[in-house]
Amino acid sequence: MGIVMGPNQYGKSECRIVTVNRDSSRHSIKDLNVSTSLRGDFDETHHTGDNAKVLPTDTQKNTVYGLAKEQSVGEIEDFAMRLGRHFVDTQPPVTGARILIDEYSWERIPVGGAGHDHSFARSSDEKRTTAVTIDGSETHVVSGLKDLVVLKSTGSEFWGYPKDRFTTLAETDDRILATAVTARWRYLSTDLDWAKSFEAVREILLETFATTHSYALQQSLYAMGKAVLEKRPEVAEVRMSLPNKHHFLVDLDRFGLDNNNEVFFAADRPYGLIEGTVTRDDVDPAPAAWYSLPEF
Amino acid sequence: MGIVMGPNQYGKSECRIVTVNRDSSRHSIKDLNVSTSLRGDFDETHHTGDNAKVLPTDTQKNTVYGLAKEQSVGEIEDFAMRLGRHFVDTQPPVTGARILIDEYSWERIPVGGAGHDHSFARSSDEKRTTAVTIDGSETHVVSGLKDLVVLKSTGSEFWGYPKDRFTTLAETDDRILATAVTARWRYLSTDLDWAKSFEAVREILLETFATTHSYALQQSLYAMGKAVLEKRPEVAEVRMSLPNKHHFLVDLDRFGLDNNNEVFFAADRPYGLIEGTVTRDDVDPAPAAWYSLPEF
Amino acid sequence: MGIVMGPNQYGKSECRIVTVNRDSSRHSIKDLNVSTSLRGDFDETHHTGDNAKVLPTDTQKNTVYGLAKEQSVGEIEDFAMRLGRHFVDTQPPVTGARILIDEYSWERIPVGGAGHDHSFARSSDEKRTTAVTIDGSETHVVSGLKDLVVLKSTGSEFWGYPKDRFTTLAETDDRILATAVTARWRYLSTDLDWAKSFEAVREILLETFATTHSYALQQSLYAMGKAVLEKRPEVAEVRMSLPNKHHFLVDLDRFGLDNNNEVFFAADRPYGLIEGTVTRDDVDPAPAAWYSLPEF
Amino acid sequence: MGIVMGPNQYGKSECRIVTVNRDSSRHSIKDLNVSTSLRGDFDETHHTGDNAKVLPTDTQKNTVYGLAKEQSVGEIEDFAMRLGRHFVDTQPPVTGARILIDEYSWERIPVGGAGHDHSFARSSDEKRTTAVTIDGSETHVVSGLKDLVVLKSTGSEFWGYPKDRFTTLAETDDRILATAVTARWRYLSTDLDWAKSFEAVREILLETFATTHSYALQQSLYAMGKAVLEKRPEVAEVRMSLPNKHHFLVDLDRFGLDNNNEVFFAADRPYGLIEGTVTRDDVDPAPAAWYSLPEF
Repeated sequence: MGIVMGPNQYGKSECRIVTVNRDSSRHSIKDLNVSTSLRGDFDETHHTGDNAKVLPTDTQKNTVYGLAKEQSVGEIEDFAMRLGRHFVDTQPPVTGARILIDEYSWERIPVGGAGHDHSFARSSDEKRTTAVTIDGSETHVVSGLKDLVVLKSTGSEFWGYPKDRFTTLAETDDRILATAVTARWRYLSTDLDWAKSFEAVREILLETFATTHSYALQQSLYAMGKAVLEKRPEVAEVRMSLPNKHHFLVDLDRFGLDNNNEVFFAADRPYGLIEGTVTRDDVDPAPAAWYSLPEF
Repeated sequence: MGIVMGPNQYGKSECRIVTVNRDSSRHSIKDLNVSTSLRGDFDETHHTGDNAKVLPTDTQKNTVYGLAKEQSVGEIEDFAMRLGRHFVDTQPPVTGARILIDEYSWERIPVGGAGHDHSFARSSDEKRTTAVTIDGSETHVVSGLKDLVVLKSTGSEFWGYPKDRFTTLAETDDRILATAVTARWRYLSTDLDWAKSFEAVREILLETFATTHSYALQQSLYAMGKAVLEKRPEVAEVRMSLPNKHHFLVDLDRFGLDNNNEVFFAADRPYGLIEGTVTRDDVDPAPAAWYSLPEF
Repeated sequence: MGIVMGPNQYGKSECRIVTVNRDSSRHSIKDLNVSTSLRGDFDETHHTGDNAKVLPTDTQKNTVYGLAKEQSVGEIEDFAMRLGRHFVDTQPPVTGARILIDEYSWERIPVGGAGHDHSFARSSDEKRTTAVTIDGSETHVVSGLKDLVVLKSTGSEFWGYPKDRFTTLAETDDRILATAVTARWRYLSTDLDWAKSFEAVREILLETFATTHSYALQQSLYAMGKAVLEKRPEVAEVRMSLPNKHHFLVDLDRFGLDNNNEVFFAADRPYGLIEGTVTRDDVDPAPAAWYSLPEF
Repeated sequence: MGIVMGPNQYGKSECRIVTVNRDSSRHSIKDLNVSTSLRGDFDETHHTGDNAKVLPTDTQKNTVYGLAKEQSVGEIEDFAMRLGRHFVDTQPPVTGARILIDEYSWERIPVGGAGHDHSFARSSDEKRTTAVTIDGSETHVVSGLKDLVVLKSTGSEFWGYPKDRFTTLAETDDRILATAVTARWRYLSTDLDWAKSFEAVREILLETFATTHSYALQQSLYAMGKAVLEKRPEVAEVRMSLPNKHHFLVDLDRFGLDNNNEVFFAADRPYGLIEGTVTRDDVDPAPAAWYSLPEF
């Protein structure tokens, strides 16, 4: 028996990069947060501190900036694949890489009715995300979004659940339903119109959340994932993590006032957390695509 | 000589309230963070713990929810004035009140080309703010915005500054200028179309930031404040706190690549911080309006 | 072919509970953040919103508070096992549960040289953690700590790494090494003196970090994990996530000053991230113990 | 009538600096967050972008690192005074400066019963603070602490308060009292044993919180400030901001369980906020010392 090094990876996290496309006087910008992780045979550095196979995380950071210039960043999925492939192809001990990118969104500042050429405002706290895994010759793309906060002021019920001695919740046929969507979906291809697919998936998620009369946040989750899979053949599976951001009806009876679902207390903690996967039943699972990502 | 109680205030901070207007099936929502502070003669509780004059912060919280129902919330300035006036008018020991409200913004989720009746998405991390002070019979309204993140990809220079032995910064005639605007402006009236004034001030701030060719963030600050005062007679003064969110040009020469203001590192800390006041010279200052607010 | 519900779980996250042991006038307190997740057959609620098998997250929250009273909380591992077992044993559709607990640490306020009977101060931002998984009749305990921030002002080198066109980092035989330790270790038993084992593991991690002359943070990681496994037979494997909190030597030459590793800039982002597993080679892996936990 | 520039300041915020004292092999470290602000005649840059009087914030940052080397940092009050005086003395347009420093605390990692020579662990999230203001030839020192989280598990009551239609809070003669202390105290001298005074004030604040049987958090605030002024003649006034971190007794009756102040829900928002000043009545107020600091 002995003690051995098990699975491991290392890299540079949260390289904040902003690129400006100056091909014309009408600039466009990309604002990204890039994290790299390399995988391979790194036993020596763990055992003895011999770094002969360890491409420094500082060099990984420089590579993010260098490759962003050599070829314009483009869509985050393409940039992540270029980065991952670069490390695997140029560093023999590196047999795999995982690149995470979050993209922040900006809009042109309106001036005199039109968007300004080179002045921008951050449009939302929502981020578009990708997690690209290079595993030898295989490439997996898992894209997504996070911090998309949504709310239905009606069209949500919750009743019919089991009761036990710790039950105090009242059943309701009308409540506020609110969540901050984190969604990740695995693509079946590595060659797509990424922006178009992202916008389509995002629109489906939003529309389905909006139009589903909900009896449980679980039902909304499944409906959202199912709608994506029905309409987007390029997607193999969707995983979602949906905190139930509780809005409690305030008891105003005590003050001689009624409250017809009009006044709510928006609570912070604790919160429900609904997590799940919606998947096609005829695709192979791809555990490598999800390795070291959150399960949901 | 002795030891005495000096200025003080107390209240309930960060009452999170969401109200739904259900007058028709096309709902609208208000999402607020309300903080109350009461001022007056509270020496006894400090000296002995006698709470005969201390309206509990729990009751202040309940009042926020109750008054939100008795009369619809409306604009945050009006709601803050109603709250502050309620405390001063109904609690004899209370001679003043300061009510802070942050308002979160939501948009209707688009479904089939139109905004949904009762489903919403958080539109930005920016907040509309107000700070209302009731001081005996006087009322002051200071409104504003915060977390409005803006960026110019060109049209910003910085040169001509003094050099000393600690100078290493290179002068530049083209840099990224980015900041997160916190602005507060004092109104000369307590009876206005608040929403209209807010939208107008916000638009002026954004347009002026966008169209000012900037030699210093200080110059942008002054231009923004001046434009508000020139166009909005209801505003007495504007105070701004503008962190200079540095975007450093990455030295790609080292990698045999040029970098014509295309690839930047977005830094977190340290950051420049430019703070200032732009004011009319013919209005009386109103220190009570700003008491216990940040100076900028 | 079809679309199906895949793996999923739901529960209540971040139930903040403080318990006071009042058996004598010398109180002791427990301050916990408890999250529950239930697993089982929840297909109906996803497909139709039928909640007949869905124990509400509100009830899960109540159960946390109720069970904390029925039997004193005790060690977090025991409390988590009691909670998980309760859900699996009393709710037929529930076949598994995962309970996460973070424990905050408090010290008695010293008064006149001794700790006060009922007054406490938060002692550190570090948390003791556990993640207990009930999987049918099996129980897995993964305990750990997070936010343990450590720094060596010398005794750390970094050199001998591969160079490529993006290399700019200088080799060094003396640098600051700093990290915020997140460590999780899997226990081989469910019946231990948890507090004693936790304190022992924590001490080994700290001592090994301190006394390892480090040529790479990877080497420190492995040394820390190996030392735990050598000295604590109850531990099967250790997983660690170690951000390399960079402290960059400031170039003071430019100001006519030398800097013999005395003055550093503590950077925020980007940061290196070293993640790895140290394991016994004669224990079975236990993927169920780690499911839906971070990989490192 | 016209529009003019009013009060303003600018500088570099959050310069993170770690210094190592290597006078012997037993190192000691200082870990600081330093923010500088300069005041003076900066009208030109605001009006025209002429920066002839604007010492860049980048240079201010370099000065922090340079002065930290020229003379060892020492106590934060002394370092802040040196920094502020440097800017006022060497830059003619600069007539005032305000330097903020937060200091993080570290302890030696115990190894074999003794503290290690060069390995440290962050000891708490509490920070020691100072705010030094140079105003022409005058110097003001306001020191303090923040994020000192304390809790009494008994010895706190709250009753006897006014009731109105919005009152729902029950009176209590036994509750948890918890807060996160932010305290700032103004010194009457600029030449003190700062570390000794800080430790003494901190100990008084803690002991008084612990030993005061409290009928209101206001009473604790006043007692804490009064005790400091009684015992530390070098302090002119103390200002405190004390969030009332509510711990609500959980109603376990509903589950057939009693709850004798044993099980509490620790709430996040809203929270009470108690703010106040305790001062000597025979010292002159010093508004310049507090300008652009939080009022409490």
